[in-house]
Amino acid sequence: MLEELKENVLRANLMLPRYGLVTFTWGNVSAVDRRKNLVVIKPSGVDYESMKVDDMVVVDFDGNVVEGRLRPSSDTATHIELYKSFPELGGIVHTHSTNATAWAQAGRAIPCYGTTHADYFYGDIPCARPLSDEEIASCYEKNTGRVIVETFCNRDVLSCPGVLCVNHGPFTWGKDCFEAVHNAVVLEEVAKMALLTEQIDPKASRAPESIRNKHYYRKHGKDAYYGQK
Amino acid sequence: MLEELKENVLRANLMLPRYGLVTFTWGNVSAVDRRKNLVVIKPSGVDYESMKVDDMVVVDFDGNVVEGRLRPSSDTATHIELYKSFPELGGIVHTHSTNATAWAQAGRAIPCYGTTHADYFYGDIPCARPLSDEEIASCYEKNTGRVIVETFCNRDVLSCPGVLCVNHGPFTWGKDCFEAVHNAVVLEEVAKMALLTEQIDPKASRAPESIRNKHYYRKHGKDAYYGQK
Amino acid sequence: MLEELKENVLRANLMLPRYGLVTFTWGNVSAVDRRKNLVVIKPSGVDYESMKVDDMVVVDFDGNVVEGRLRPSSDTATHIELYKSFPELGGIVHTHSTNATAWAQAGRAIPCYGTTHADYFYGDIPCARPLSDEEIASCYEKNTGRVIVETFCNRDVLSCPGVLCVNHGPFTWGKDCFEAVHNAVVLEEVAKMALLTEQIDPKASRAPESIRNKHYYRKHGKDAYYGQK
Amino acid sequence: MLEELKENVLRANLMLPRYGLVTFTWGNVSAVDRRKNLVVIKPSGVDYESMKVDDMVVVDFDGNVVEGRLRPSSDTATHIELYKSFPELGGIVHTHSTNATAWAQAGRAIPCYGTTHADYFYGDIPCARPLSDEEIASCYEKNTGRVIVETFCNRDVLSCPGVLCVNHGPFTWGKDCFEAVHNAVVLEEVAKMALLTEQIDPKASRAPESIRNKHYYRKHGKDAYYGQK
Repeated sequence: MLEELKENVLRANLMLPRYGLVTFTWGNVSAVDRRKNLVVIKPSGVDYESMKVDDMVVVDFDGNVVEGRLRPSSDTATHIELYKSFPELGGIVHTHSTNATAWAQAGRAIPCYGTTHADYFYGDIPCARPLSDEEIASCYEKNTGRVIVETFCNRDVLSCPGVLCVNHGPFTWGKDCFEAVHNAVVLEEVAKMALLTEQIDPKASRAPESIRNKHYYRKHGKDAYYGQK
Repeated sequence: MLEELKENVLRANLMLPRYGLVTFTWGNVSAVDRRKNLVVIKPSGVDYESMKVDDMVVVDFDGNVVEGRLRPSSDTATHIELYKSFPELGGIVHTHSTNATAWAQAGRAIPCYGTTHADYFYGDIPCARPLSDEEIASCYEKNTGRVIVETFCNRDVLSCPGVLCVNHGPFTWGKDCFEAVHNAVVLEEVAKMALLTEQIDPKASRAPESIRNKHYYRKHGKDAYYGQK
Repeated sequence: MLEELKENVLRANLMLPRYGLVTFTWGNVSAVDRRKNLVVIKPSGVDYESMKVDDMVVVDFDGNVVEGRLRPSSDTATHIELYKSFPELGGIVHTHSTNATAWAQAGRAIPCYGTTHADYFYGDIPCARPLSDEEIASCYEKNTGRVIVETFCNRDVLSCPGVLCVNHGPFTWGKDCFEAVHNAVVLEEVAKMALLTEQIDPKASRAPESIRNKHYYRKHGKDAYYGQK
Repeated sequence: MLEELKENVLRANLMLPRYGLVTFTWGNVSAVDRRKNLVVIKPSGVDYESMKVDDMVVVDFDGNVVEGRLRPSSDTATHIELYKSFPELGGIVHTHSTNATAWAQAGRAIPCYGTTHADYFYGDIPCARPLSDEEIASCYEKNTGRVIVETFCNRDVLSCPGVLCVNHGPFTWGKDCFEAVHNAVVLEEVAKMALLTEQIDPKASRAPESIRNKHYYRKHGKDAYYGQK
């Protein structure tokens, strides 16, 4: 079942090491079938090199394995929580990419310093609040999803397709799993640029709102004119 | 028409990812035919991997598409403005290369700290002034070209073949599109070295004028003796 | 003798340059046969490219060469000291990987800033005390092993599978030589992330204990649920 | 003439881009024939990709081209000055490798922070004094050699096989051109590690003399025991 989605999820997972976003098994991609409310996700702790289509795991919105011989990613409950809360999402990526993780470890949102950022993320890329000890002790992965949802309570989730989980690393998403991978690459590059920007000028200020709007809406929405029709 | 120029522009565009200067479609190269006042430029938002000669777009100096099935780069108006103002230019490159973009985001000119810089760029590499909200709201890309032209009102454009656009990224140029790519590589490397120099000594001072002149004129002008005759 | 172990040690050594952990010959991997108390180790100063299975050297716990035409790694006495003190260890790796070495040169333990670290290392990765001039003058390599042992007198050696030797570089270990290489990769990545974290926030604080425990025990011990059964 | 030396010099030059030490043509390797007092050196400004054995240039100690169709490296006079002053040298390398150049641009010697450095360079790697305007105006390249010679007036040139030229970049050397390339790689790596060390602890102190001696003499001199006999 869901053969095409499984192939996409496999291909999207294999893009992570190719883009230099993961070491070993430190990342996972999933995609959702919205009609069936089923999620296809990478198995837990399996090498990218040896992964096959049939290793992909299908789970329902309660986290039950519906198909697959392997255990799903240990972060599955986070993915599910996001799919349930945000009907716009078609794919989700989690990595420990170096620079984005450093921002997460510093517990800081990534300021929007320029157009590379503004082309994809409208405004700062937020860092979710720490989980309480209770939230960590019980249903840790589900609660990780919940604090992400909480972080976006006043924000459009597709106009800021990523978040930092404090002391952990980034999650990104998109209309499908390939867009989610694309945004994971962008987030890592933007995180690196922001770090270097502050090294060049520790008091660097954000790009003005006019530039942020111009670049975001050059690529998104009804008046977008970037790319082909 | 302009088949040879189109092939050159395609080849020059493909050099950008090979030199590590662009992620995805974040860059564009153009070249100009000075007899016909036509510009050949990369199409907007098209993958480097799949780009073909016939995807190149030919535009006139008013920005009208003269040949090509695709929309030209969204930065086309910036390129045209530079070609119109600087008859010396044969090719132009725009990228979001990491270190040069970080300097642009910090809004600082790159100081000339050594001979690597001085071999190609005479003096600091300037950072253009921010656009006003009005300049952003209307004819943004054209106005981006105009502030670059303004930046070079008292400078020779070929002896400093590049600029940083604040909160955005670098543009470089040259006698043809390959020289423009060459200078984009140099700018990125010089940007990285300057950043590291300031990390090693936050009070580092510029290379003395005598060294800057020596190295620049070792490679340029009638007394140059670098390279083959 | 020990043909399988020799092949493993060769393969593990060849992984070091592939993972970008060593320049030239700056690293070595060993493994131990616990029944025979024999150690298989890389020969000293031999190129990775030309290394063969028969170049591996077999030494006993007194450092005598039992088999092999070549001299063993100059760090052999350090490896032996660790095998003798820690019966849990099956393999040991020494490298001069860039970021881990920088922490060693700064003489600082690597703080546990996040889950990437906590997934593998329980608590900070310690930096061993400097050797005295006497310890350097006589039996330097053996004493290097002894100060590592001293560093772990109150710690479980497998729950923190690595250490920094001040002004020198990292040693890592594991149940076998492949796990030791795996941990060498993790240590280098964690060292880089910690450095960047402090650049983003010089006052960054450690991940809370609850997160450290959660992630460590998600992967280790009887209640682990990461990976496949 | 000097066919073998030419082949070595070509091969050594081609190692520079492979080790990531040069961009475009920003580097050169030479070797000397001590019986004939002839130097074989890379031609000026020629692409590494297309370079052939016959492109190598043979010059005498006065800088006259003895064989070769092309102009020798613009830095030839620096190489000659070093060969004339230091009979121990068999090969010389000049690069603009990123981190070493950053130290040169900051005008600082590289402190010996650890064993990676001490294994190859005894003590700090010096930064030569700036040239006066007169020294730059006339015989610039020869004077670059002279200030390097001046820097080593009280030091053994083989126990510190490299130097930084202020606002410029590194020169390294060795008994032959391959050792010189080897030392260029080491210098770049040591430069990077030293920079990161100071980022981790801006007040980091040098490795103690005992460690520096131990590691240098473990690899060099009559009591060396690193590597194979």
